[in-house]
Amino acid sequence: MSLPDVVSLKPTPDQYAYTFGGRAPLLTVRPGTIVELETEDCFAGNVKGVGDLPSQVCTFPYLNPVTGPIAVEGAEPGDTLVVHFVDITPARDWGISSTFPNFGALTATHSTAMLHPPLEERVWKYDIDVAAGTCRFHARTSDFSVELPLDPMHGTVGVAPAAGETIMSITPAAHGGNMDTPEMRAGTTAYFGVNVEGGLLSIGDGHARQGEGELCGTAVEAAMRTVIVVDLIKGAAPEWPRLENDDYLLAVGSARPLEDAFRVSQRDLVGWTAQLLGLDQLDAYQLVSQAGLAPVANVCDTNYTMIAKLSKILLGNNRAYEGRHDRLRAIAAEYLRQR
Amino acid sequence: MSLPDVVSLKPTPDQYAYTFGGRAPLLTVRPGTIVELETEDCFAGNVKGVGDLPSQVCTFPYLNPVTGPIAVEGAEPGDTLVVHFVDITPARDWGISSTFPNFGALTATHSTAMLHPPLEERVWKYDIDVAAGTCRFHARTSDFSVELPLDPMHGTVGVAPAAGETIMSITPAAHGGNMDTPEMRAGTTAYFGVNVEGGLLSIGDGHARQGEGELCGTAVEAAMRTVIVVDLIKGAAPEWPRLENDDYLLAVGSARPLEDAFRVSQRDLVGWTAQLLGLDQLDAYQLVSQAGLAPVANVCDTNYTMIAKLSKILLGNNRAYEGRHDRLRAIAAEYLRQR
Amino acid sequence: MSLPDVVSLKPTPDQYAYTFGGRAPLLTVRPGTIVELETEDCFAGNVKGVGDLPSQVCTFPYLNPVTGPIAVEGAEPGDTLVVHFVDITPARDWGISSTFPNFGALTATHSTAMLHPPLEERVWKYDIDVAAGTCRFHARTSDFSVELPLDPMHGTVGVAPAAGETIMSITPAAHGGNMDTPEMRAGTTAYFGVNVEGGLLSIGDGHARQGEGELCGTAVEAAMRTVIVVDLIKGAAPEWPRLENDDYLLAVGSARPLEDAFRVSQRDLVGWTAQLLGLDQLDAYQLVSQAGLAPVANVCDTNYTMIAKLSKILLGNNRAYEGRHDRLRAIAAEYLRQR
Amino acid sequence: MSLPDVVSLKPTPDQYAYTFGGRAPLLTVRPGTIVELETEDCFAGNVKGVGDLPSQVCTFPYLNPVTGPIAVEGAEPGDTLVVHFVDITPARDWGISSTFPNFGALTATHSTAMLHPPLEERVWKYDIDVAAGTCRFHARTSDFSVELPLDPMHGTVGVAPAAGETIMSITPAAHGGNMDTPEMRAGTTAYFGVNVEGGLLSIGDGHARQGEGELCGTAVEAAMRTVIVVDLIKGAAPEWPRLENDDYLLAVGSARPLEDAFRVSQRDLVGWTAQLLGLDQLDAYQLVSQAGLAPVANVCDTNYTMIAKLSKILLGNNRAYEGRHDRLRAIAAEYLRQR
Repeated sequence: MSLPDVVSLKPTPDQYAYTFGGRAPLLTVRPGTIVELETEDCFAGNVKGVGDLPSQVCTFPYLNPVTGPIAVEGAEPGDTLVVHFVDITPARDWGISSTFPNFGALTATHSTAMLHPPLEERVWKYDIDVAAGTCRFHARTSDFSVELPLDPMHGTVGVAPAAGETIMSITPAAHGGNMDTPEMRAGTTAYFGVNVEGGLLSIGDGHARQGEGELCGTAVEAAMRTVIVVDLIKGAAPEWPRLENDDYLLAVGSARPLEDAFRVSQRDLVGWTAQLLGLDQLDAYQLVSQAGLAPVANVCDTNYTMIAKLSKILLGNNRAYEGRHDRLRAIAAEYLRQR
Repeated sequence: MSLPDVVSLKPTPDQYAYTFGGRAPLLTVRPGTIVELETEDCFAGNVKGVGDLPSQVCTFPYLNPVTGPIAVEGAEPGDTLVVHFVDITPARDWGISSTFPNFGALTATHSTAMLHPPLEERVWKYDIDVAAGTCRFHARTSDFSVELPLDPMHGTVGVAPAAGETIMSITPAAHGGNMDTPEMRAGTTAYFGVNVEGGLLSIGDGHARQGEGELCGTAVEAAMRTVIVVDLIKGAAPEWPRLENDDYLLAVGSARPLEDAFRVSQRDLVGWTAQLLGLDQLDAYQLVSQAGLAPVANVCDTNYTMIAKLSKILLGNNRAYEGRHDRLRAIAAEYLRQR
Repeated sequence: MSLPDVVSLKPTPDQYAYTFGGRAPLLTVRPGTIVELETEDCFAGNVKGVGDLPSQVCTFPYLNPVTGPIAVEGAEPGDTLVVHFVDITPARDWGISSTFPNFGALTATHSTAMLHPPLEERVWKYDIDVAAGTCRFHARTSDFSVELPLDPMHGTVGVAPAAGETIMSITPAAHGGNMDTPEMRAGTTAYFGVNVEGGLLSIGDGHARQGEGELCGTAVEAAMRTVIVVDLIKGAAPEWPRLENDDYLLAVGSARPLEDAFRVSQRDLVGWTAQLLGLDQLDAYQLVSQAGLAPVANVCDTNYTMIAKLSKILLGNNRAYEGRHDRLRAIAAEYLRQR
Repeated sequence: MSLPDVVSLKPTPDQYAYTFGGRAPLLTVRPGTIVELETEDCFAGNVKGVGDLPSQVCTFPYLNPVTGPIAVEGAEPGDTLVVHFVDITPARDWGISSTFPNFGALTATHSTAMLHPPLEERVWKYDIDVAAGTCRFHARTSDFSVELPLDPMHGTVGVAPAAGETIMSITPAAHGGNMDTPEMRAGTTAYFGVNVEGGLLSIGDGHARQGEGELCGTAVEAAMRTVIVVDLIKGAAPEWPRLENDDYLLAVGSARPLEDAFRVSQRDLVGWTAQLLGLDQLDAYQLVSQAGLAPVANVCDTNYTMIAKLSKILLGNNRAYEGRHDRLRAIAAEYLRQR
């Protein structure tokens, strides 16, 4: 098996983008290209230790830098931009998490507006050991410390939005964006509906790991060295992002209130299941009702994100997108073997 | 090891309850008693095949019968009623699921009021094979059929509510009730704050299995033969129900909108974690943010229910409730050995 | 014109109820009876000055006492219990408002659970001058003081709930309860669906006045001397409470999130309008879209309450409930003339 | 009194904008300039009768055209762009309203995703009589017809957003946009925080009248001839839009769920009141709780919008923004006198 083209995308500091849309491509690739890229953390690398408070060292709106956009040759509105994550490796031996004033799930925010003063802003620095596959939490007000499994992923992955919009990189919506789901790990294929010529994929916000919900507003934020395969399916644009890994189909919904994010993701999974199994809508609704999973992605961003998940065992021999995931998986395996 | 008392609770049809609160105990037990009980399905057994539409064969409010209440000797307000699920076995070789007019997550409802006519009311009958550990889905409008793993659980478990309230069994709230989480399976211990003398535990709504969210409004509904250990901890009443199994601590929140159910469950898990690990609130918030899971329970009932879940590996040698779960687990194992 | 029977209902302190449902009637009346009643304030009269903090002088769940229940002879499930407010007069020359820990619209609460410490608990005492028609606000941390118009109303009005439930008096739902709308003033007629024999009307939670939303969680709370006409319409039970005054039809929805309360109230108003004007559903939807009003009632209680309001000018000669409001208005006028 | 400069802005069809942000100014004015402008209706004028279904004659995203942007000389981020509505007059003798698939408050939508087929798409044509001050509703499925008062307003008013975003004109947010409040009528002054140089004001979406909530998703949509005074206050940028008329201060919040829109608007009104009256936050919270109004603006757009409203009588001699509203009102009066 011969590998497709491999290209590199390592932005200089002033090349990072902070929006989806409104930017010229940094790179243009043919469908099927492998891209080795680097991403900076959500603090734009400005928080290096527990003494660096984000509200002091970061400058709104220069938060959550993304690498890209990457244009895909031939991608037109209505097509499906496909990105397969081959590898996501933390670039440093540390990661940062923090609270942030008026941000997070268990605090008043700018939109869940209250009269409370903000919670304390506090920074935690995690030790990352890629070889051992761990990241270590250190409590700030006691000696407690514990190792957590490393589970690297990207919080922010998406394409240029529809309707000529330019959307901050911290917002998840139908174009993808800051969905903050732990499911966006190596081995996963993501499908996005193309809204503009070239599709314009951007990726950022690496997390060494993340709990479901991203409760305090940030994960173990880390710069990443990431390898993807960028691909294209003509037509078939999904209304909302879809993911696939070896075991599951995953539909994504981002909205408020959280039940609407749930509804969007579940309705899409019902429709996807109906199509793949040749079921009518109500039979698919029933099957997903008994077999589906519904983990939270984030409850802190400008939209909340939910995942609807179905085991591929139920599909029998049916394959989503004609087996595109399996083919990209094979390319990824070959790349990793040759590297 | 000698077993505690074993008693039986098999309600006659007219003994089933349809509320939490407002009922005299059917049974009174000492703490530590094993109870073998029977529960009817959420349709009160009236839906026996795909031709039995719930809206025709069931009579509101006689839905979701529960077995109980069981009074625990010595239980007083402020105490913690403990129930460990030893075994949950479907009582029949079939289970039922259905849509129901104006009920479910992807339909207009009485409170998410819209102008649409209701979705079609449709019934599915599943084949249950306890020995094989499967339940089989049959599509209604095609030949498609697929086996799903059996994963029996109780949708409805709770105690008499506070403030003199009597609450329909279909409502989940701080007293427990119809939480509809797949986590309520055999091997799980549940903790409820006691609001009235005796605590008054009731259990019903068995599911042969359930997807997260109970999307269409019903799971694979099944009458059950269930064995529990009923126990008591003096004091320590949790504000909201808590669960524990061999691997996880689980906090439960039931509210609307769904983000409030999420917030309730996560805040309780943060507080529980802080207490068990001796962390301050913000350090616990951080740890749960990176290590916590957040699966949906239901998005169809009168309140929605979320689960917040933390691996017990993080606890080191610390044990919730002084290891009560482990002791009940041992009793359960001995019971099953002797049976 | 001769007046109907006039009876009196002045509960002793231990006769107050704290729930809807679960209580025997204090009084049974024939349809059309005038009842002169007294209600205590939501603090059960325990907060008498700015030094009396509710969390110290009040005892949960003995909050929000209601006067009743009043049984109506002949009222059966499916009927419509009608109550017309003839007069609502503050019983004292002062009223109380306060914040309360974890209660209110701009604070974390038990269900909008957060990590903030509660806002300060503070009490305000208003001077009430019934003759002048004013109540006077005094700031607590400055000399500022201002007169507000007196606009007496009852926050809590409802009947025994369906399905055998007993519901705390602080909860608004389909049975009415703690709706906390300023529209429940003298001159208003309220219609409730009857769920149990006698209907079982209770009234409490007088407010000398209230802003829309009851933002901080309490209004200008006041004991009241109130006169009502209690009446009955056979059949025609509305699913949710309805109000009517000389100028408007008003539909009420109580739910969370707030858009569901809005949807419930608006859908009911659309249906009511369609019925009164002989319109199809979509034409009524259109008319209400352009002519309807939507003031908030409360955003602090266990359910939030919205009002949907339509000018009766649009009705032409059509009358809701065959002109029942007009007849009760005439009786009220005669009563006030004779008093 | 001499009038300020009067300029005209009448876009050609291809000059209309469909976003806030991302556009060069059509017009640049000095602070204090009177602008006579024309706006097209939300259908871009394509729906002319009941046979023109919007989904057929309109092309997404070319909906809700806005006139502008208008740059204000000297406006810098952190300043306050002020717009006073002098006159809003329907440009035609008819207006249009319609349902639209998956849009509106009582229907499943793209984000409140359900399995129902869309409601019927139906168009209503209203007769507008500017001289009589009326618009006439005609039912589509019966002979019913009724006159409603003309109450012209603009649904969409705002400035370029922060953070380099470009936002569809149908979205309301902190920059204003499609707030759809009936309060945006002639005689009202609106204040917006400036995010980019020039501020970049755009206006569109005229309504001959609108109910609170814009229930079905559209008002009586009408092209308008509108006169405004565009002004500037250095500094003092409000976080969210504020309005003022002769009688009320009004704060605006746009968010989901609806209670968050309520919270945003009320918190801003509390802060505004505290500042104008020299009260501490809790005293202002109390005063607004008893004296505030909370009408719905819209419950159909991509964010929902709420209004928080306080009578200016409470302010005594205190004036918002040093009496800017009064001065603009005087200019408006003089303009109308001279016209």
